[in-house]
Amino acid sequence: MSDQTTVGVGMIGYAFMGRVHSQAWRTVGAFFDLPLAPRMAVLAGRSKDSTAAAAAKLGWADVETDWREVVRRDDVQIIDICTPGDSHAEIAIAALEAGKHVICEKPLANSVAEAEAMVRAAAASTGRNMVAFNYRRVPAVALAHRLVAEGRLGEIRHVRAQYLQDWIADASAPLVWRLQKEKAGSGALGDIGAHIIDTTEFITGLDVVGVSALTETFVKERPVAAGSASMGPVTVDDAALFIARLDGGAVASFEATRFATGRKNALRIEVNGSGGSLAFDFEAMNELWVSEGDRGFKRILVTDPDDPYVGAWWPPGHGLGYEHTFTHEIKDFLEAIAEGSDPSPSFADGLRVQRVLAAVERSAADSSRFTAVEDVTS
Amino acid sequence: MSDQTTVGVGMIGYAFMGRVHSQAWRTVGAFFDLPLAPRMAVLAGRSKDSTAAAAAKLGWADVETDWREVVRRDDVQIIDICTPGDSHAEIAIAALEAGKHVICEKPLANSVAEAEAMVRAAAASTGRNMVAFNYRRVPAVALAHRLVAEGRLGEIRHVRAQYLQDWIADASAPLVWRLQKEKAGSGALGDIGAHIIDTTEFITGLDVVGVSALTETFVKERPVAAGSASMGPVTVDDAALFIARLDGGAVASFEATRFATGRKNALRIEVNGSGGSLAFDFEAMNELWVSEGDRGFKRILVTDPDDPYVGAWWPPGHGLGYEHTFTHEIKDFLEAIAEGSDPSPSFADGLRVQRVLAAVERSAADSSRFTAVEDVTS
Amino acid sequence: MSDQTTVGVGMIGYAFMGRVHSQAWRTVGAFFDLPLAPRMAVLAGRSKDSTAAAAAKLGWADVETDWREVVRRDDVQIIDICTPGDSHAEIAIAALEAGKHVICEKPLANSVAEAEAMVRAAAASTGRNMVAFNYRRVPAVALAHRLVAEGRLGEIRHVRAQYLQDWIADASAPLVWRLQKEKAGSGALGDIGAHIIDTTEFITGLDVVGVSALTETFVKERPVAAGSASMGPVTVDDAALFIARLDGGAVASFEATRFATGRKNALRIEVNGSGGSLAFDFEAMNELWVSEGDRGFKRILVTDPDDPYVGAWWPPGHGLGYEHTFTHEIKDFLEAIAEGSDPSPSFADGLRVQRVLAAVERSAADSSRFTAVEDVTS
Amino acid sequence: MSDQTTVGVGMIGYAFMGRVHSQAWRTVGAFFDLPLAPRMAVLAGRSKDSTAAAAAKLGWADVETDWREVVRRDDVQIIDICTPGDSHAEIAIAALEAGKHVICEKPLANSVAEAEAMVRAAAASTGRNMVAFNYRRVPAVALAHRLVAEGRLGEIRHVRAQYLQDWIADASAPLVWRLQKEKAGSGALGDIGAHIIDTTEFITGLDVVGVSALTETFVKERPVAAGSASMGPVTVDDAALFIARLDGGAVASFEATRFATGRKNALRIEVNGSGGSLAFDFEAMNELWVSEGDRGFKRILVTDPDDPYVGAWWPPGHGLGYEHTFTHEIKDFLEAIAEGSDPSPSFADGLRVQRVLAAVERSAADSSRFTAVEDVTS
Repeated sequence: MSDQTTVGVGMIGYAFMGRVHSQAWRTVGAFFDLPLAPRMAVLAGRSKDSTAAAAAKLGWADVETDWREVVRRDDVQIIDICTPGDSHAEIAIAALEAGKHVICEKPLANSVAEAEAMVRAAAASTGRNMVAFNYRRVPAVALAHRLVAEGRLGEIRHVRAQYLQDWIADASAPLVWRLQKEKAGSGALGDIGAHIIDTTEFITGLDVVGVSALTETFVKERPVAAGSASMGPVTVDDAALFIARLDGGAVASFEATRFATGRKNALRIEVNGSGGSLAFDFEAMNELWVSEGDRGFKRILVTDPDDPYVGAWWPPGHGLGYEHTFTHEIKDFLEAIAEGSDPSPSFADGLRVQRVLAAVERSAADSSRFTAVEDVTS
Repeated sequence: MSDQTTVGVGMIGYAFMGRVHSQAWRTVGAFFDLPLAPRMAVLAGRSKDSTAAAAAKLGWADVETDWREVVRRDDVQIIDICTPGDSHAEIAIAALEAGKHVICEKPLANSVAEAEAMVRAAAASTGRNMVAFNYRRVPAVALAHRLVAEGRLGEIRHVRAQYLQDWIADASAPLVWRLQKEKAGSGALGDIGAHIIDTTEFITGLDVVGVSALTETFVKERPVAAGSASMGPVTVDDAALFIARLDGGAVASFEATRFATGRKNALRIEVNGSGGSLAFDFEAMNELWVSEGDRGFKRILVTDPDDPYVGAWWPPGHGLGYEHTFTHEIKDFLEAIAEGSDPSPSFADGLRVQRVLAAVERSAADSSRFTAVEDVTS
Repeated sequence: MSDQTTVGVGMIGYAFMGRVHSQAWRTVGAFFDLPLAPRMAVLAGRSKDSTAAAAAKLGWADVETDWREVVRRDDVQIIDICTPGDSHAEIAIAALEAGKHVICEKPLANSVAEAEAMVRAAAASTGRNMVAFNYRRVPAVALAHRLVAEGRLGEIRHVRAQYLQDWIADASAPLVWRLQKEKAGSGALGDIGAHIIDTTEFITGLDVVGVSALTETFVKERPVAAGSASMGPVTVDDAALFIARLDGGAVASFEATRFATGRKNALRIEVNGSGGSLAFDFEAMNELWVSEGDRGFKRILVTDPDDPYVGAWWPPGHGLGYEHTFTHEIKDFLEAIAEGSDPSPSFADGLRVQRVLAAVERSAADSSRFTAVEDVTS
Repeated sequence: MSDQTTVGVGMIGYAFMGRVHSQAWRTVGAFFDLPLAPRMAVLAGRSKDSTAAAAAKLGWADVETDWREVVRRDDVQIIDICTPGDSHAEIAIAALEAGKHVICEKPLANSVAEAEAMVRAAAASTGRNMVAFNYRRVPAVALAHRLVAEGRLGEIRHVRAQYLQDWIADASAPLVWRLQKEKAGSGALGDIGAHIIDTTEFITGLDVVGVSALTETFVKERPVAAGSASMGPVTVDDAALFIARLDGGAVASFEATRFATGRKNALRIEVNGSGGSLAFDFEAMNELWVSEGDRGFKRILVTDPDDPYVGAWWPPGHGLGYEHTFTHEIKDFLEAIAEGSDPSPSFADGLRVQRVLAAVERSAADSSRFTAVEDVTS
């Protein structure tokens, strides 16, 4: 502990993601032996008062109202970007040009072009870069990755990945910014579909190479505010489905929706290989179901000391929660910085996901790819 | 019971399906009050000795070695077709032309043209017709259908249907006839994919109107017999995946595979509506999971007296098995004959599934529908 | 098949148990290669008309209105006793004295004295004897027994066995005969508690040697008939709980109740050994959960060809139902008769369960065994 | 926030419990709006160097090597006792006499006499007192309590509570202090059995009034250290089972064991009432299974904003972990102090559990309460 170097952290944004990241920065040092000691130096937000209140509650030492000031500060070596996607590229590129290390929320950007520019800036910088696909750091997901990498499942043949939520299944839910394309970029696809693409590639080690997709907007207009009689158009997808081919011959299906009534945060993935299978559902995040041979699935509680990340926490059977995935992410990021290596997933990984998202949108826009059943005659 | 009319049954074929149907004919009268009393009159098979042995074991009174003789017999009013798909059309059309009632195993035929001819023959006949999509008669599936029909799920938005098996995941499994296109027509698609198409349409009441598909053959050649060093080509699909649009705006994903290691007969279907959701897995066939409102899924044991078909059997909690689905099918068939109505699913329903299968094959044959990820640039 | 000897069966009683046994006798020969071919010769019941109607529906060739006539008949070699417990001893002893083979529903008798007399009669007879603890013939339970016998769980330390139903949880349910001691002997204890005692002894191979028990009657009086305003006393237990020591140092807990709202027929048993564990719930009767080592429980679908009894039925994943347990029981009974061996469980096994039931009643009657918490002071 | 009063906290002990409590003190203010702001003032431990290292890692401002010094400090208003049970009474009584607020790990003490002394000291003090039965603060357990209190389950009839672990199922595990009576007081009974007694009383609102128990030590001697050939005796119970009567006529079974191979931290509780049922398993701590009416159990993910404690954390479906139960406990403790009310569970609640533990030990010591099966004859 005593020969740790302290690194200052500046975080931009303090909504949902900012709250989770703060908890990770606050907690990581108490559980992991870190090569670098993070200092929660400064929080940036537009409103002085609100930002100051958030900083006090979340434990940040100082505040700024312009993110550019954070990038300029000498007491900040790490920039943590928790803003909406439309500002990721600008902030990240500036930070990298200033030689800062950057961790950026997902999806990496709102377009492939932006993501490419971020990857170029990363290549030119002395700073390290990471995109915050936190679900890689669920111990059960990391164990799934390990089992596949060790060959325990044999050759991978099938993936079925779903991310199911239901928070706008009610047609009277208001038209929040996430349902407007100019602000959110896309709907379920970019918000949660991005996670299952990354998780699939992480667990299997295989890239998505081709897709055929559809997207749908079930509720086409909504009250402009809760309870309002005035309606506005929903301009993003409510759901996105696609089938895909992966490197090496595996096939996959993907589905992201906010209309799966009764499912709250069901990031589900099943992988079938020639020698065994895996199944995971984030709604039971401490469990991994593993079938070696063909006799059935074993429910493994991923809470043993040898499981990824788990040894730092509690005894077997004492499960972790959502926020721990971020703590693990921060820990890996700090280690990568100290080692001078690229953390995973890097901006390059984020760009690859961005290309898949763009391919899905392109495919979904072309309805001629669909074969009509009524056209099939003898 | 005393005013029942006896109807003679002639069954063609006595392999797996024949064994199950025999159990249904043997059993149905002991549990249901039937308008017609079936008599297991005659079993047809090619080999005299084997057919006679099967008839003795399965309880058939007589045997024939030519199915045409069965169709000709005056003591036979019902023809039960349990042969492979390539003979369905010929037998069914002859039987219908002879005024017999026909129940035919699925898929209805090996082509849309054959299925269309069967539907025409049915329309011209005084005999009733039924295609044996037995999974409609799982009490849990029938209850799912009832709940949707009653509007308990609101407007249907999502279906995800999978039929997962693993019996040829091992690459050394031999090249049985089911893996040869000239005999089997297709692979997983027609064999088990047909079931999830029918089950989806049955539960939701919505037709599949368009599809985008891929099929894959993971193991491209196999030993021509168990343990043989001589290899032959697998000419059918090992797996079929497709996304679909249903009538009325719902979207769906389908997957049929024999390579889902650890899954034995997992016909799984989830339906999400605006007001609730359903989930079913045949591996736990006595359970239906129902979410009304959005608080989560209730595990209903579909063994209560008011549940479909169940009152005829045992007290609550005393589950049924696979074969009961056929018993229920026979019961409904006999009732429809007595009422002079068309049983469901009829040949027309089978034809509709056949068209979807053909659309899937056509779509899967055109790889240009896929969007390559590497082509996506800024 | 051709050198089978036919054995005539006479069944006494045709209520719930009679219906299930009939299905077993009707079905067993179509699936198993039997050394003896059962013939459903005669059904006995008190009312001529009702018995004749039942015989017609269930497939019995003849009827008698006095069970003594059945015992006397030369065309009957097997007596199947499906009556309430108070007549078991008289019928079984008469049948054994006549040299018949006897299969008798559980519990074996309404008292230890009766059960002892039955065991003595069995010892003096050339007929074989079996008590119908059908749950031994659930394939998953039989597999559990096999795994323990093979030593796969190591030394057995814990059993927790429960039989949970809810059919009289509603206090307005009427005072049926099962709730009256003079007719039923006991309540949940003898009816369903007997099953978990036998299943525990079967799976573990260990006898219950000592118990401490409580019983409770939650609803002390009920309408004498459905909807009646006249109330009568419930004179049996609604629930029975006991802790026990087994041979060899293992400990166990047992609970039988008809008041577990939401549980329909949950015969549940967990076994922990030094090397692994098992868990079973009849509500999901085709599943056995097995933990070898300590990493967690594998859900095994007990539908593989090598699993007990399963090879005779359907392919993997095509589950069995409640009635199959009786079919397996009949098959084993016929084989034991042909071999001249004692089937298991025999009347002697039934007597052992009877002694445990009596010990539980004796223990529960002595409330002084309880330690009052309020008496504990420093 | 600005008008919060700061309260200094002194924690005694920094092993497993100390690490968890530290995380709670560090985190609580970032998520809950507290009436008092806790300051992590001082950590006490025997070794200066180890305590200083722990304080640095866990975030305590100062260290002491004598807990008495902590009690004396003016900057400390709250004493958090995380030591083994044999020192609870002495520390707690001294702290209460000094007017400090005290939160004490469970079980409250190693004897009823000690617990009684602690309750007396609490009554005479201006300080508030709490015993750390943290499982009450699992949101699912708190929701279970709420549902019962609202009458949603009707009259309570059954509880079955188990706490299953397997960490010493291996006979070669060494003789740690927890397996020695002079240090640990009891084995599974006090360590984990205490939790299920408290959880049962909390959820149902009913006290345990009488018990009949057995305890067992399966592995009677163990290596004195890991790998040692020298063996020493295990002097505590490996498992404790008891049946019980609760206030108001309900019955219950309890089991605590460290030998349930494959179960890691399975605190399981089922409650059956006249109108519905509940089921919970800490291994899936974010789930509560609720049966209202009798149709089956709904799996509720207890992560909605209105669920107990949950609104302070993440969106629905983003689960919490083990440590959050302590954060909730601290939050409730601080609120109780500010309100001048007694937090729940208080020392008085802890004493009641202590009396039940003593009754279990007394009952288990008297083997004459068991009825031997072999003594039962006709």
